[in-house]
Amino acid sequence: MNRSPLNGRRIRLGMVGGGEGAYIGGIHRFAARLDDQYELVAGAFDVDAERGHRFATQNYIAPERSYSDYATMAQFEAARADGIDVVAICTPNFTHFPIAKTFLEAGIDVICEKPLTTTLQDAEALAEVVSQTGRFLGVTYTYSGYPLIVEARARVQAGLIGKVRTVQVEYPLEWMATGVELKNNQQAAWRVDPQKNGRGGSIGDIGTHAYHLAGYVTGLKAESVAADLATFVEGRALDDNAHVLIRYEGGARGMLWSSQVAIGCSNALRLRVYGETGSLTWAQEQPNELIYTSLEGYTQIIKRGRDDLDAITRARTRTPPGHPEGYIEAFTNLYSGFAAALRARDEQRAISGIGALIPQIHDGLKGVAFVDAVVDSHQQGTVWKQPKYR
Amino acid sequence: MNRSPLNGRRIRLGMVGGGEGAYIGGIHRFAARLDDQYELVAGAFDVDAERGHRFATQNYIAPERSYSDYATMAQFEAARADGIDVVAICTPNFTHFPIAKTFLEAGIDVICEKPLTTTLQDAEALAEVVSQTGRFLGVTYTYSGYPLIVEARARVQAGLIGKVRTVQVEYPLEWMATGVELKNNQQAAWRVDPQKNGRGGSIGDIGTHAYHLAGYVTGLKAESVAADLATFVEGRALDDNAHVLIRYEGGARGMLWSSQVAIGCSNALRLRVYGETGSLTWAQEQPNELIYTSLEGYTQIIKRGRDDLDAITRARTRTPPGHPEGYIEAFTNLYSGFAAALRARDEQRAISGIGALIPQIHDGLKGVAFVDAVVDSHQQGTVWKQPKYR
Amino acid sequence: MNRSPLNGRRIRLGMVGGGEGAYIGGIHRFAARLDDQYELVAGAFDVDAERGHRFATQNYIAPERSYSDYATMAQFEAARADGIDVVAICTPNFTHFPIAKTFLEAGIDVICEKPLTTTLQDAEALAEVVSQTGRFLGVTYTYSGYPLIVEARARVQAGLIGKVRTVQVEYPLEWMATGVELKNNQQAAWRVDPQKNGRGGSIGDIGTHAYHLAGYVTGLKAESVAADLATFVEGRALDDNAHVLIRYEGGARGMLWSSQVAIGCSNALRLRVYGETGSLTWAQEQPNELIYTSLEGYTQIIKRGRDDLDAITRARTRTPPGHPEGYIEAFTNLYSGFAAALRARDEQRAISGIGALIPQIHDGLKGVAFVDAVVDSHQQGTVWKQPKYR
Amino acid sequence: MNRSPLNGRRIRLGMVGGGEGAYIGGIHRFAARLDDQYELVAGAFDVDAERGHRFATQNYIAPERSYSDYATMAQFEAARADGIDVVAICTPNFTHFPIAKTFLEAGIDVICEKPLTTTLQDAEALAEVVSQTGRFLGVTYTYSGYPLIVEARARVQAGLIGKVRTVQVEYPLEWMATGVELKNNQQAAWRVDPQKNGRGGSIGDIGTHAYHLAGYVTGLKAESVAADLATFVEGRALDDNAHVLIRYEGGARGMLWSSQVAIGCSNALRLRVYGETGSLTWAQEQPNELIYTSLEGYTQIIKRGRDDLDAITRARTRTPPGHPEGYIEAFTNLYSGFAAALRARDEQRAISGIGALIPQIHDGLKGVAFVDAVVDSHQQGTVWKQPKYR
Repeated sequence: MNRSPLNGRRIRLGMVGGGEGAYIGGIHRFAARLDDQYELVAGAFDVDAERGHRFATQNYIAPERSYSDYATMAQFEAARADGIDVVAICTPNFTHFPIAKTFLEAGIDVICEKPLTTTLQDAEALAEVVSQTGRFLGVTYTYSGYPLIVEARARVQAGLIGKVRTVQVEYPLEWMATGVELKNNQQAAWRVDPQKNGRGGSIGDIGTHAYHLAGYVTGLKAESVAADLATFVEGRALDDNAHVLIRYEGGARGMLWSSQVAIGCSNALRLRVYGETGSLTWAQEQPNELIYTSLEGYTQIIKRGRDDLDAITRARTRTPPGHPEGYIEAFTNLYSGFAAALRARDEQRAISGIGALIPQIHDGLKGVAFVDAVVDSHQQGTVWKQPKYR
Repeated sequence: MNRSPLNGRRIRLGMVGGGEGAYIGGIHRFAARLDDQYELVAGAFDVDAERGHRFATQNYIAPERSYSDYATMAQFEAARADGIDVVAICTPNFTHFPIAKTFLEAGIDVICEKPLTTTLQDAEALAEVVSQTGRFLGVTYTYSGYPLIVEARARVQAGLIGKVRTVQVEYPLEWMATGVELKNNQQAAWRVDPQKNGRGGSIGDIGTHAYHLAGYVTGLKAESVAADLATFVEGRALDDNAHVLIRYEGGARGMLWSSQVAIGCSNALRLRVYGETGSLTWAQEQPNELIYTSLEGYTQIIKRGRDDLDAITRARTRTPPGHPEGYIEAFTNLYSGFAAALRARDEQRAISGIGALIPQIHDGLKGVAFVDAVVDSHQQGTVWKQPKYR
Repeated sequence: MNRSPLNGRRIRLGMVGGGEGAYIGGIHRFAARLDDQYELVAGAFDVDAERGHRFATQNYIAPERSYSDYATMAQFEAARADGIDVVAICTPNFTHFPIAKTFLEAGIDVICEKPLTTTLQDAEALAEVVSQTGRFLGVTYTYSGYPLIVEARARVQAGLIGKVRTVQVEYPLEWMATGVELKNNQQAAWRVDPQKNGRGGSIGDIGTHAYHLAGYVTGLKAESVAADLATFVEGRALDDNAHVLIRYEGGARGMLWSSQVAIGCSNALRLRVYGETGSLTWAQEQPNELIYTSLEGYTQIIKRGRDDLDAITRARTRTPPGHPEGYIEAFTNLYSGFAAALRARDEQRAISGIGALIPQIHDGLKGVAFVDAVVDSHQQGTVWKQPKYR
Repeated sequence: MNRSPLNGRRIRLGMVGGGEGAYIGGIHRFAARLDDQYELVAGAFDVDAERGHRFATQNYIAPERSYSDYATMAQFEAARADGIDVVAICTPNFTHFPIAKTFLEAGIDVICEKPLTTTLQDAEALAEVVSQTGRFLGVTYTYSGYPLIVEARARVQAGLIGKVRTVQVEYPLEWMATGVELKNNQQAAWRVDPQKNGRGGSIGDIGTHAYHLAGYVTGLKAESVAADLATFVEGRALDDNAHVLIRYEGGARGMLWSSQVAIGCSNALRLRVYGETGSLTWAQEQPNELIYTSLEGYTQIIKRGRDDLDAITRARTRTPPGHPEGYIEAFTNLYSGFAAALRARDEQRAISGIGALIPQIHDGLKGVAFVDAVVDSHQQGTVWKQPKYR
């Protein structure tokens, strides 16, 4: 592989999965386009090759770069002088590992959906591949892309709320409150299948987001977890509701709730962090506000877009206060962060600005290890278990 | 003891504790006055007798009915033809038992603060006294006095949200985020003393409120609890933060958080109940709204005071929608409920209306048993424990 | 008339109107009881004397002090050594004048509902009576009883938001969105009758509240008003929606909206004041929070009950932050304020604390003059009109 | 001019203004990119040509298509076979007219910022050019791009809230609360200059947005307006606060407030529409929720992204409920709507889907006529004035 420098040009992006009827693939494309950092030039969009080709045409992909399978795509793109610089993997969990491995070994960087893999062995093997190939692997822990999450992290690190005591994080959803997997909902179908989704149900699908966010903002590492999983919709082999207690290194305590059956919760990820001298609260559905309360009891609404936010936050916002930004912008922050990281590597510079703090392989590994510890704890009677990676 | 019928007159109320500088005693008096069901005619307001007498004078209590100690008060009031019908106990937890016992045995009904007692043995002994004397004992689980909590209960019972799956309840406070007990704050001082507060810190003081509320609204009984307690402010002998997992009979799961150190949380009791076909959410700081979401995803704001609320709710509201009611009104609902219960007994009628669903001795017993199970679970490594009374 | 000093005893209260089926009378009684400043001992509760007597009995009024008409009541109570100190007038607007006049001339102080009278002549005549008799007349501009309104006033006076530029105040209701006056709703029936309600419909009934609140908080006097009134429900002789522009002395501008037909608005009084260096926002349906934003853009939530509020606010609050207070507590603040004023007069002291800033005769006069100016402006084509009293 | 069909390719976009340090130009580019409907291929980005060329290079514009002035750009682009299809005008108000005229007459379609022009004569002249050339002119009334605004419009049209009675619309901002125009803020400088901004200050800059939104959602036409303008920051020649009463055809009434000096208001556009049988409320800062209340008093939160929204809404949303969308997505909806309109014209099809209901020349004309009527009304003493175009 021999690529021209990234400087002065857009990064060439390929995509596996994410074709017709897919959800997250479209979000990846919005995120790739918004800041004009990428151009989508190749893809293996669908397991149904014909449908994939049709989709490629609609997306202005040259016919010869619409591939019937990912392996061929990796091989041919690696061989082209103008081949893709990076591939986005937007397929169900169980396929992340072989696809990522293939591209990394072909010398192509990877942007991968979470959870990284369905088993800890796979995650460890993938980490080994990343290490051996020296390639980049970004993981789309979307919510760490929100500017006020980065602001919360910066303020916690700066000591604004003092030593963290308690972390309350939750991620409830409602769309799987009934057996939608039996009603032709493909998004749901693979999520309830342990082979495709991994050992955790809600805890793998969304609990990992919540866990990542809590660690991202506080900087704390989990020492052990104790969990109580439940499956409310009949016929499911995986949890659709998870209650987890967390003990962090240094004495902080956490409580994590994930649910796929919480009616009324569209995408109600929420993080609250309480420290010795203050607290911070953020809710994904109102992402343009961060609530800070000082020990003296003053409650302040911190608004995205304001001038006195951290530089790291300002690098992640595009509109002034009062002009709401949302999910696509958060996702774009990850994509543009990945782009910044790739450009920095290309130019042998340190990563900075929007490229700082992006989720990479270790974050992916931590997520899978968390699911393992949670499921083990539950199966053994809510005993305390230590995640292997933290 | 020989009392005139309650019909056509106000109930005569006495009070133990609640004098100068007290907090909850004042609330009891507001609650007793608002609906004009009681007249406060006697009291042993203070362990400092002189201060107590001064307070009595300011509150229009006849000098001969301002007592230096509760035992004398019980004796003399029981002997008067116009003696008090009921006594309100507004003292620290560890004194509830002897005071309540004394009045009950003197033939006087009791309204008692929660938690009922500091030990399960005391609670059981008190239940025995209630049973033997046949007297009334109401417990001020304040939050069950809120009209929309009663509405939530009615709707859950009517099947609006289907079988309950998950209960998320929390009661965080901020006022003990630092060692205020060392700075002359008497309210805090006894709360951190196991002899005076009982085995639980935050879990006893406020966790019991949360636990009661969850059971009150859902009608569910806890099968077992698993807990992780923490003490964040140095020098405290009791928890100031408690994380509890709950398994309810029938399979529902619960998560309970109580904290005395959560900066930003004034009195942030919140209950969310998720069932098979809907959910209900209520927050004590915005008590005039109950949020209902149906399985179809329609989110509706149910407002206190509207015509189509349950009769049981309408009996507990005094103003039209949009005219906010709050904490004192909720407390009044308990007091007026106790009055209704006393009048019903006096007239050998069934209790109805505002007198229905009031917390009594069994609720008190359940609360103390919950604290015991939680502390045992924590001390034994977060094992599952069954509360003795449920 | 010869009354014992008020010191050391409750104030004796009488009531005209407010009997069975009445709404505001009940609120007056709650407000009189909550702080234990009054005892209700006499009344002419109903134009239907028998119904009034029944109501009196239920309210523990001695039979000889339940009167068939207000004139008799004034005469007899004035003659009793233990006669009422003050009377609350809870009748439809058009009767305020003769009743208030009768009691004042009998030497009895008055608490009167707003608007004071239905015509400006009556209001002026009443002011003359007050002046000649030297009696007290308090007007229940309820919303000025909310603690955070008093706090807002104190902060504006202290210069927190600088010179006021713009005042946005609104008071929309929904309950008269259809012709409820034709469906046996007596509350509505007199409100649409110019003889009983006065020249203004919504502007008289609720617009006066909004106008009073804006003036109360800002301290500004209206220089002129320009109005556009509308009547949306067929058959009404008065406005049920009013849009008013206000020019205040000194250059500030105001916008006032009152409506009785705004579906979705339970009691949605809201005040926003913008100054040169900050702003304050308060909404009656969430009365425990006052939102302050500084010129620098920091938005702070000021919570009722906090320690650093003005003394004048703390005198008006009974519970800690997070324990919501509402409408009845606000009303009580007026009643206890009236009591403080009466006691101060009795003891020839200056009024202070909760007795400060209570609405009296001049506030009543201003309200009626405002309605006059608004209706004149509208009738003359939205020309600017100056209210006679400001 | 001779362009290849738009089918199967991206629309070629040029831009005038919007270079370094500009605000709205960046938003136009985000909006052009997000849905992949456009490619930006040419521009005259800056009055400082060198700075403009530098900006062009950074944005991957071919050097020969970075122009030093708009006239040259129009001439050369019109001449190229692969010339731009449409130009976006992102310059201060007073330049809209000559630029738009130039491109339209060169045969190039136009996307123009609002207000369309600074004088009504210019607006009329531009409408004449549009009419004579037959070209497309889209106006970026941004807020009509929000999906729930389109939903509100659809529901009002479908009769959900019955005949509209009252419209409350407001658009307050805070950023010009002090004389920022004197402190090197170029965005502010031209906005306070009548030559560059037109006759209206806040009313032209943001009041026109509010006015457009109210008409868009209700379908009502203003019959007359009465206004009170104020200038609070010394030295300004234009209003920075405007209060406007509106009478709509058919009897509905409106109240409009625009302000550039309302501290605490980031971008607080808000619309409330009250009809005979219901109401709808929407706030730009929480754009993913639309509040509906029925006559019966049920308040429902309508969430963007839900399945049962109107098709016209679903065409304007990219993420599921709970995944917030914001300002850039709203702007994109206009851009993609313009694209849909251009493609439909190209293929001689009717406009549908996201192309429906986009703001065009008549909307621009209406906005300028509104400013004229408002300023006339104010200058003549708040008399009622009829806008020339409605």
